[in-house]
Amino acid sequence: MEISERHGMPGLTYPEEYLKRLAADLGAKFAGIFGTETVERYVLESYTALLRTSKITTHLASQTIRFSTERLTALAQAKGAIESTIPEVLFVCEQNAGRSQMAAVFTHHLADGRVHVRSAGSSPSASLNPAVVAVMGELGLDMTEEFPKPLTDDVVQAADVVITMGCGDACAIYPGKKYLDWELTDPAGLPLEEVRFIRDEIRRRVELMLAGLDSA
Amino acid sequence: MEISERHGMPGLTYPEEYLKRLAADLGAKFAGIFGTETVERYVLESYTALLRTSKITTHLASQTIRFSTERLTALAQAKGAIESTIPEVLFVCEQNAGRSQMAAVFTHHLADGRVHVRSAGSSPSASLNPAVVAVMGELGLDMTEEFPKPLTDDVVQAADVVITMGCGDACAIYPGKKYLDWELTDPAGLPLEEVRFIRDEIRRRVELMLAGLDSA
Repeated sequence: MEISERHGMPGLTYPEEYLKRLAADLGAKFAGIFGTETVERYVLESYTALLRTSKITTHLASQTIRFSTERLTALAQAKGAIESTIPEVLFVCEQNAGRSQMAAVFTHHLADGRVHVRSAGSSPSASLNPAVVAVMGELGLDMTEEFPKPLTDDVVQAADVVITMGCGDACAIYPGKKYLDWELTDPAGLPLEEVRFIRDEIRRRVELMLAGLDSA
Repeated sequence: MEISERHGMPGLTYPEEYLKRLAADLGAKFAGIFGTETVERYVLESYTALLRTSKITTHLASQTIRFSTERLTALAQAKGAIESTIPEVLFVCEQNAGRSQMAAVFTHHLADGRVHVRSAGSSPSASLNPAVVAVMGELGLDMTEEFPKPLTDDVVQAADVVITMGCGDACAIYPGKKYLDWELTDPAGLPLEEVRFIRDEIRRRVELMLAGLDSA
């Protein structure tokens, strides 16, 4: 029996050497905090995790580096190796394709350096919702470089505030965190005018949250 | 604004201390191969990954330990710290709820120690397909302790043979591996008699594969 051929599969060759070179570069950034082996593991596992759910494989290596850098930074913050002087806010929805992505962009934009923000999905979709990218673009907010990411332990550990949007039990309650659950309509499959309404509702809530953090 | 309460969410408290104790026990098993910090990371990340997709949270801690142990063993094999004297076979389907699980059980059962087998899903479902558990039970093969697991880099690195079943581009082609793609009907939602047919087809293919490995 033939077991050396992969039949009828276009497939994507795993760029192991390339990822290891990227990991070596990234390792220099975390020297003294994480060993090269840990950084390499994060890069390779992050690649596999994004590959599983992403449909857009052209930017996968650069997305892997962004995702790994965020995860390693979060982990370094959580263990106190990198000082976090501003609140860390984490938005989690199911797909990380619409709501949590919009909330993260608004928070980053409106906070003006007062908070740091991350977003993730309990069941990340293949790509961002194009209607969401369009209605955020109408406000001059560019989301074309964003991509859905799975929720990982490291980013939760680093968060001070966790804001969930319909991810249910897929997000555990971590001790020592502040939680909010925002009930928002899922923009998936909705026409632009309804996605705009959700967008404006998210902006309003982000403004309130930032005002709350300022007064806290 | 209130940000200390989680509204309208039953939620599950993250059992951090318990998981860290389990990780410490597991660390003893991998002493001299992985540091305690690496083992703890694997346990916490594996928990979060299973929590995201699993709907059955009662056995999540014990599943986390099984999943982490498999992943760390695979990683130790891949880097040569644990010797692998028999072929490692990895089955990957989309949900790791039916086809790849049946194939793994048959391989384990029929190989009688000649190969070691693992299975994973590119998009793991919440629980095993009950019809699959039923038709395997008819042959005296108990699958009640199995659970869907996401595909991770470590188990691919450790594999000698990767057999995919309709996971498409979500599985990259790793250099140095042997690949097979098995075209099998997805048993999701099918009546028992059709699931039995798929089961028997998988058994036939597993027998052929094992015969091929023996003659190789």
